[in-house]
Formats: sequence, C-alpha cells, structure tokens
Amino acid sequence: MAQRPHNFNAGPAILPLEVLEEAREAIVDTHGTGLSILEWSHRSPEYGQVHEEAVTTLRELLGPSAEGHEILFLQGGASLQFAQVPLNLAAAGRPGEYVVTGVWAEKALAEARRLGRGRELWNGGGGGFSTLPAVEEIRATEDCAYVHLTSNNTIFGTQWRDFPRNLSAPLVADMSSDMLSRPLDLSAFRLIYAGAQKNLGPAGLAVVLIEKEVLDRCATDLPNILSYRAHAGARGLYHTPPTFAVYLMGLVFRWMLDQGGLVEMGRRSETRASLLYEVIDASDFYSGTAAPSVRSRMNVTFRLPSEELERLFLEESAAEGFVGLKGHRLVGGLRASIYNAMPEASVRALADFMRAFEARHG
Amino acid sequence: MAQRPHNFNAGPAILPLEVLEEAREAIVDTHGTGLSILEWSHRSPEYGQVHEEAVTTLRELLGPSAEGHEILFLQGGASLQFAQVPLNLAAAGRPGEYVVTGVWAEKALAEARRLGRGRELWNGGGGGFSTLPAVEEIRATEDCAYVHLTSNNTIFGTQWRDFPRNLSAPLVADMSSDMLSRPLDLSAFRLIYAGAQKNLGPAGLAVVLIEKEVLDRCATDLPNILSYRAHAGARGLYHTPPTFAVYLMGLVFRWMLDQGGLVEMGRRSETRASLLYEVIDASDFYSGTAAPSVRSRMNVTFRLPSEELERLFLEESAAEGFVGLKGHRLVGGLRASIYNAMPEASVRALADFMRAFEARHG
Repeated sequence: MAQRPHNFNAGPAILPLEVLEEAREAIVDTHGTGLSILEWSHRSPEYGQVHEEAVTTLRELLGPSAEGHEILFLQGGASLQFAQVPLNLAAAGRPGEYVVTGVWAEKALAEARRLGRGRELWNGGGGGFSTLPAVEEIRATEDCAYVHLTSNNTIFGTQWRDFPRNLSAPLVADMSSDMLSRPLDLSAFRLIYAGAQKNLGPAGLAVVLIEKEVLDRCATDLPNILSYRAHAGARGLYHTPPTFAVYLMGLVFRWMLDQGGLVEMGRRSETRASLLYEVIDASDFYSGTAAPSVRSRMNVTFRLPSEELERLFLEESAAEGFVGLKGHRLVGGLRASIYNAMPEASVRALADFMRAFEARHG
Repeated sequence: MAQRPHNFNAGPAILPLEVLEEAREAIVDTHGTGLSILEWSHRSPEYGQVHEEAVTTLRELLGPSAEGHEILFLQGGASLQFAQVPLNLAAAGRPGEYVVTGVWAEKALAEARRLGRGRELWNGGGGGFSTLPAVEEIRATEDCAYVHLTSNNTIFGTQWRDFPRNLSAPLVADMSSDMLSRPLDLSAFRLIYAGAQKNLGPAGLAVVLIEKEVLDRCATDLPNILSYRAHAGARGLYHTPPTFAVYLMGLVFRWMLDQGGLVEMGRRSETRASLLYEVIDASDFYSGTAAPSVRSRMNVTFRLPSEELERLFLEESAAEGFVGLKGHRLVGGLRASIYNAMPEASVRALADFMRAFEARHG
C-alpha cells in the first residue's frame, strides 16, 4: 500500500483511517451477510438498522438541544438545499434574507433569487470577504421568511464564533464545512443543513436538521422529492437513500463519539488551527487572508510574498507528501483544510514544513 | 467470509463480485495514491479521469446512436427525475403525458401533477397492470410537451419490447430497472433516465441521457441544481458529484464491456428469464402475474396456489441461501429480480429449487 499522504483537501476530504478500514470489509461482505452493503435492499432489516443507528448516533453527538429537530439524510448535497430551503420555507413576497459572507452564501442567495424568493441582508464582498458582520448587526426585515447564514467559509477562511439570537425570523444555517466540529446549541437554529463531504462522510449526502414546528409550516404544494414534510413523513426512506453513504457517515458519527464527542472535536480543532496560525502570526513571510477575530478553525488560508513562492511552496510540499494545499482560485495562495479526521501529527508536519520553507526562501 | 447468497433483491441489487473486490481496495488506497477514493477532491486530476472514463465507457457501451445525447450523472435517483423532467421540459398549459403502466409511472405522473404539468395518456391499473399498451396505441396529444413511459415495471413484472416511434412529441423513458440490460437504440428517445441501483451501480445516482437539441430548449428559469442545462454546461461537475458512486458505476460499465457489451447482456438476460418462465409455464402450481407477451426479463413475478405456500416458499428458499424473493406488497407472491450481474448459476439454482418445492408441496 502506498504511504498515506497528509491530506489537506477542502472536500471531499480526509476521513478517519479506522472508518475506511472497517468500510473496506463491508464492500464485499457486510456484517457477515455475505453481501455488500451496496447490494442490500434499503427495505431490509439490516439496512434499517444501519440507517437508524446513524440517526441515533447523530442524536447522541448533538445532545438534548436537538430534541425538537427532525433529522433527515438527503441526496444532492448542500447545493440542492440552496433551492430546497426557499422552496419549503419562503414564498413569493416572503423571501429569505441572506448574509453573504462568501461564495457559498452567494450561490445560496442566487438559487433563492432564481425562485424569486431571496434577498441580500449583508454583503462582505467589498472587503474581499475577509470579515463577518457582528452578531448584533443581523436583524431580520419584517416580511422575511428566514435569515440564512454560512457558518464557515471554506474559500475565504472565516468562521462564525457566535450566532444571532432572538431574531424575528427563523435562523437557517449552511454548516457544510464545520458541522460537528464543535459543540452545537441547536436552540439558536430552526434549520441547519450540511453537505457530508467535509467532516461527516462521503460526497452525495446532506444532513438536514429541521425544527418540528418549522417543518409543520413548510410548503405543501411541492413535488414530494423536494418536500421536507414528505421526507420526514417517510422517516428518511421516502425514496431509496444513498445506502453506502449513510452507512459510512454512521461509522464516522460512531468514531466521533468514541473519540470523545463534539467537545473533543472542538478541542482538537482549536489545537490544529492554533498550530498553523502561530506560524503565520510569528512570521512576516506568511500572511493570513482572514481577519484574526473571525479566522476559521477548519480552513486556514494564507498567502506568501509572491505567487512564484506560492508555486514553489506547493511543489516542495507535494514532494514531501502534502496534498490539497492549493488555495481556491478566487483567493489564490494556500489553504490548509483541517477537518475532524485530520491527525494533529499532519498539522505539526505542515507547521514544521512552513517554518523550514520560510528559513530556506524567506 | 460468509458464503455469498443468491441475491434476487429488486434494488439496491446484486453487483459483479469482481467489481466489489476491486472497489474494496479503493476504499483505503485508490490507484496507489495512498488515499481513499472517498478522500479525493472532485477537482483533482485523479477524480477527473475516473469521471471521464465512466462517461466514455458508457458511450462505448451505447454505441453510435447515443452520439447526439449528452450524458449526465446526477444525484437524487429516478425520484428526483420525476420532478426534474417536467420542470425542464414541460410548462403550465404544455404538460407531459404519461403512460401509466405501474407504480413508478404513477409516481412520476403524481410529481408532474404537483407541478401542474402532468396528464395521463394511458392507464393499465384496471387490468392490475399486467399488460402494456400496443406501441401503435400511443399517440401524443397536440399540446403536450413530451410522452413519458417506464420501460420496465419492477413491481408488476412487465417490460416494453418495442417503443413508439414517430411520435409528434419527444419520447421520455424511465429505464431505471432495465437500462443497459439489452442493446438500446437511442434514436427513439429524446431523454432517458435511470436510477443506478439495479443494473448500473450503487444507490444515490441517476444517469440521464438527453438529446442536445432538447437540452437547448429546456427551461432557463430554474434553480441551477434542477437545471439540465446547468449540469451539462459544467460537464457533470456543477456541484460535488457522488464521487464513490460514479467510480463504482464506472467499474460496472467496464465490467459490462469486458463481458461483451449490451448484446451479451441481452443474451444473458434472455437466458436467465427463460429458465424461470419455463418452470412457471410447465407448472399449474406457479402462475406468472404478467401477460406472457410483455413479461419482464428483469423481474419475474409469480404466485403460488396460496399465501401460506408463498410464506413457506420464502422460508425454505431463505434457508437454502436465496435472498430478496418476496414480491412487492401490492402484488404479493414472489419476485425474482435478475439484473445484469446475476450469475446464470443462481438462476439455475432457483429454477431447481422451484421444481423441488413443487414436487414437495404441489
């Protein structure tokens, strides 16, 4: 087997090796059935148990503040949620309001606008999306259906620490890139969605947490496949779920729990981020792209003195076994994505590499 | 490892063992990268090659009649297509017309109706869906946007042999349960869709073949995620694709090609079906539920003289290593789903079991 590189991909991203090793066996023979999980009927008791365990393990991770929320596993990633949220929660003349803190928020707003149901509430584009609004700045307009924010911005490396409370409209959050990376108080949110392929599992799946009261007020005139009510009514089996993706995500949930749950995920995440920000802050060679008070613990984005040095950094780091460090083309520079499954040792290796690279070329 | 049962599941269903064994290694280390396919970026050259190969292998399987069709791999299975087809192709006052030959056609029509864009053209419900209309019976109404049919009906065990031609409206087909099980002349169809979890791969993926001229006439006022044009414009990477599902489906396509392509798939499928229908036809004990002229080569549905005997059949067959033979609750009885990956030996074993069971209890 080839040596495992330090995988800093932004998503699909690193997964726990223990989970992958368990899944490897399941691909040919799952739980001693002689069949692959891929070959099980989604109506079989065996799959029913896998699905149910994924839901209950997620509930265990989330704790009591999630009791009032329905849990849905849906296809289409966060991108389908960009349309599904306004279809279910907004209406013509009662739009969702969007806090635009980066590209993914822009995309979410654009989809809502295509439906005639989206409005901008705040936009950080003028400042290159390097900052976030203060929590107190966010106030819902009277006629709006919900306020939407993106809890972590993968491209610009910013992340909300606190969230608006006591809004006059339901708060909806896209948590695709930091879901379950820290303890989460669900009482602030009516709806949360997250594509799985950062902290949770493979691509092809989204987790939706929707408060039951909000669910009861969702639109009823939608195609079933786009209706939260239809999915909730069928207990996650309205249509054939992506069975393998649910299975694997369930293993990741179990792994998180075994490692110490969300408190421990938060502690590790803080440690990993600090290791890299310390190098950046101690240096005139590296410069972070996000305002320090809103820096992300998931995606550490930084520049070097020149694009030439950035290319060299990528080249030399690749030769030493680092993968996925190229920044998004909109920001340029470098990006280290350090999701839940990222070992501290890989981050220490990167910090060491950064110091050595600066010593060589600074 | 547990012994591999005879897997007659209706879907998710049996997959080629060679494919599963190759995928098993990829779960921890794909193509010697030291990373799982689940951890690759969907923008990496490695994944780009996997995706592109799946598309080109499918083109090779389909042959020249598919040259005018765009190939899309989308999430949401056939169920999302039930909504996506009318959203893209129909309009208020210009509905799609549905040939209702079973439950899946009913569901497709129901979703179109929820959008105000669906109308019934033919309905076999009065005859218990045991027959199909003659090809010449299908005529599009002048104001319709398309005619929709379901090429194979998993629940009632019927399958179209020929398809309507020279319709005055585009022909759209849901081929979820018999796609790539026989040679396919694409010139009869403007749009074909198929959930992957029968003949093609794992759940969580749909294949859409759409003629380029039809694509150019699709609606432009949709959320991107629901727009065929947006997906085609981004060459299948409009958003993060379900990378593992595409990878695995690509392996299945390659397997089909290596086995001899669609001609060979068709030959095997005919052999498998004949083995079972011969037992049914030679017996007064078993009775097929579908009219003989439209019997499915994918799903062989049959009844026994009593429900008690049917329960006993399930019980005794399970003890001998047969899985997934219970008929759908709407039809009752038994169903043997015999998709591409089903070995002839398993079908022979079932035919033998059926004869022995009749001898014991007939």
